[in-house]
Amino acid sequence: MRQPTGNTHATRAQIELRKRILSGDLPGGTRLFEVQMAEQLDISRTPVRDAMSRLVEEGLLDRARGGGFVVRSFSFGDVIDAIELRGVLEGTAARLAAERGAGEQALQRIQEIVAELDKCFGPDREEVDFERYADLNARFHHELAGLSGSEIVRREVERVTGLPFASPSAFLPNSAEIEAFTRSLYIAQEQHRQIIAAIAGRESSRAEALAREHARTARRNLDYVLAEDRSLMKHLPGLALVKD
Amino acid sequence: MRQPTGNTHATRAQIELRKRILSGDLPGGTRLFEVQMAEQLDISRTPVRDAMSRLVEEGLLDRARGGGFVVRSFSFGDVIDAIELRGVLEGTAARLAAERGAGEQALQRIQEIVAELDKCFGPDREEVDFERYADLNARFHHELAGLSGSEIVRREVERVTGLPFASPSAFLPNSAEIEAFTRSLYIAQEQHRQIIAAIAGRESSRAEALAREHARTARRNLDYVLAEDRSLMKHLPGLALVKD
Amino acid sequence: MRQPTGNTHATRAQIELRKRILSGDLPGGTRLFEVQMAEQLDISRTPVRDAMSRLVEEGLLDRARGGGFVVRSFSFGDVIDAIELRGVLEGTAARLAAERGAGEQALQRIQEIVAELDKCFGPDREEVDFERYADLNARFHHELAGLSGSEIVRREVERVTGLPFASPSAFLPNSAEIEAFTRSLYIAQEQHRQIIAAIAGRESSRAEALAREHARTARRNLDYVLAEDRSLMKHLPGLALVKD
Amino acid sequence: MRQPTGNTHATRAQIELRKRILSGDLPGGTRLFEVQMAEQLDISRTPVRDAMSRLVEEGLLDRARGGGFVVRSFSFGDVIDAIELRGVLEGTAARLAAERGAGEQALQRIQEIVAELDKCFGPDREEVDFERYADLNARFHHELAGLSGSEIVRREVERVTGLPFASPSAFLPNSAEIEAFTRSLYIAQEQHRQIIAAIAGRESSRAEALAREHARTARRNLDYVLAEDRSLMKHLPGLALVKD
Repeated sequence: MRQPTGNTHATRAQIELRKRILSGDLPGGTRLFEVQMAEQLDISRTPVRDAMSRLVEEGLLDRARGGGFVVRSFSFGDVIDAIELRGVLEGTAARLAAERGAGEQALQRIQEIVAELDKCFGPDREEVDFERYADLNARFHHELAGLSGSEIVRREVERVTGLPFASPSAFLPNSAEIEAFTRSLYIAQEQHRQIIAAIAGRESSRAEALAREHARTARRNLDYVLAEDRSLMKHLPGLALVKD
Repeated sequence: MRQPTGNTHATRAQIELRKRILSGDLPGGTRLFEVQMAEQLDISRTPVRDAMSRLVEEGLLDRARGGGFVVRSFSFGDVIDAIELRGVLEGTAARLAAERGAGEQALQRIQEIVAELDKCFGPDREEVDFERYADLNARFHHELAGLSGSEIVRREVERVTGLPFASPSAFLPNSAEIEAFTRSLYIAQEQHRQIIAAIAGRESSRAEALAREHARTARRNLDYVLAEDRSLMKHLPGLALVKD
Repeated sequence: MRQPTGNTHATRAQIELRKRILSGDLPGGTRLFEVQMAEQLDISRTPVRDAMSRLVEEGLLDRARGGGFVVRSFSFGDVIDAIELRGVLEGTAARLAAERGAGEQALQRIQEIVAELDKCFGPDREEVDFERYADLNARFHHELAGLSGSEIVRREVERVTGLPFASPSAFLPNSAEIEAFTRSLYIAQEQHRQIIAAIAGRESSRAEALAREHARTARRNLDYVLAEDRSLMKHLPGLALVKD
Repeated sequence: MRQPTGNTHATRAQIELRKRILSGDLPGGTRLFEVQMAEQLDISRTPVRDAMSRLVEEGLLDRARGGGFVVRSFSFGDVIDAIELRGVLEGTAARLAAERGAGEQALQRIQEIVAELDKCFGPDREEVDFERYADLNARFHHELAGLSGSEIVRREVERVTGLPFASPSAFLPNSAEIEAFTRSLYIAQEQHRQIIAAIAGRESSRAEALAREHARTARRNLDYVLAEDRSLMKHLPGLALVKD
């Protein structure tokens, strides 16, 4: 069976290329040559082409006019707009869940995640279980995307949050070093709680507005990094993609 | 030069496959086999794979687990959600244009399109230049997508409206036969006018709400077809994709 | 029984004073003197004071510093803001009805009004039963104000629409003379229909946005009068209150 | 000069009656008799009537059918709706300020209040200068009401927040005793900051949504009191007005 093998090779190439793009080794604007890539990765050209077309779907490559592929370039304005777009689409997921009514089990599942998130905060302001928070936060956003039951909306949310800097995990702190970031977690968790309360209460415009505002937390952390300490940028996923 | 040739072949295959999918000849759920397609279209396998991965980006095919491609299936609920999503994204384009301020030239260009659209309506209610309306309407929506100056938002609007039934042209009438459809054009044109007035007046939430409501016109025409006369369905682009 | 008599006199004085204010006989800024008014209306001072304090509640008089009353002045900007405020408050009534669920009977009642409104339109564009439309339109807005079941919201809507130029009846056409006005009725009736559909479908942000936009129809008719034909102003209720 | 004297007496009567209503001494539904009140307060009947009609404007009394006045009754549902209404109207003030552009001086003034509010928070979570916070918070909301430059909107905001439980000061904590309340101040202050940032950035729908959500903080504190510790109710302004 050729297909599975080709598929495995394509997946390997996709992972390797993605890593090089996200790390900045293949900066925005780089033209990718199939033959050269196939040689470098030591696989045949067909799975390399496959890998590249999948990375187009992910939003990391563009198809070049006249054929071939080019690494996509992002400005800080693009990062801000991608975060905005995440807010809009998660807001739509939340609004439709409130309008159409969320499934009881799905609602309970996400309420339990919110309760678990509460336990990440200790009695002192600095005591936050950052790792557990990040994990539960990712689960919260995954559940939210599907809460309305619309597959079209769920796909679109997942697609937009596929860009690394538009992910709900993108600008989460991983230590209490920066107080402004740690404080943002308290506000973010309050927003998680209120989004779900609004959905359960059928308050659809409130649910939408809260989910939008929630995405803004990420933007504020980005603004902080840009204004206060650019050395933090290297820790933030996907910012190597961004041209100043 | 191999690349351009391959590219041309891929484009030909893409157009041909798209036609077969939209016509319903390749119904939702159909597994596409590369070898077989290459034979049918009489081109080599590489451009066929390319064509199929481009159709994944268009939203007409899905990648199957374990490799290969499958024609995407849509329910009427999906059509409704895709129209909703268009409203949300065009609404975002309109809102950001109002918030950030639209460029003067771009604003003038779209205002001229609105003025041209006005001229499509004759003194009698039935006198509408449907062909010209359709053309200008497409231009209006194209301009709107870019009016905020955000490339991220523009791309996303274009992507979502790429699905044939989510296009702003999807449910436009092409004759005065159905009165409800013709009347919907008057309301749609009033919405065009108000969307632009709201953007020019920096009324961002109004601009967003109007653009969302505008997309609903398409949904109402769909509802009409489903409820009153399903024989009209065959005239509507992309509805062959939909499984009842 | 003194009270009822005093009350009757106060009501008579209230009606008479209101008439003089709305007609412009007592223009904005006029200081009202209790003794003088009592003489003019040939009633005692206590019911005159009562009448004036009721007109404060209606928004037509202000209490002057140091005691006494003064006729309130309005600019065109105030008229625009009062219409905006009606949209906001009717929007809130619609949103809460969608969020909390409207009572079945109340919903049926307003749906019947919408169906009756449809019958006001004849086959030709100019054939509109203006009188019946005005009557049913007033009933529609009265029902909408109470549809959420919130007495606090209902009161507030009624209060704001008490100002004559902020009433839902304020800028309705009463003949087919001005085509732009007649056409606005078609759009307004479509909005009535969609507001109720959105409430029934629990689409709360849509219901709110539609009710806001509906109030804008009044503003557009006002803009038309100001821009095209100021001679129409004398037919419009409450515009005598407005200082240019 | 009779007028000033009468006015002074009316003001005294208004203050005294208001106190009795807010304390619950004159509970909701109580019919007020002019003669009796005049005797109790030892002033003549005319200023008593004046005082009562002013309290109608404040929303604490209703005019009874057939003449006379009655103390208004409120349920907890009414309190919730009045808080909602405050959010809607402050949201409108914020939205219009963002749409129309706030005056530079007014914007600077409110930004300074936000900066002063920041200083109310000490390094430890419990260290909050509650008194100063309450004072600055009242000033923030007063400035916000007028920020759009619309007198119509400003009046309406002030009117609705005149009901004691709908005031922006209504459910502020005055000590660190209840942790949930103290924490709500951090979130409220973050909302103050973001409302002004949204207005300055012309993000009108965001400004509106944030101001609405801000009013919800009051509601959450009310919910807490009702669910956790009803003994706190006696400290909360205006809750004596409420019938369970």
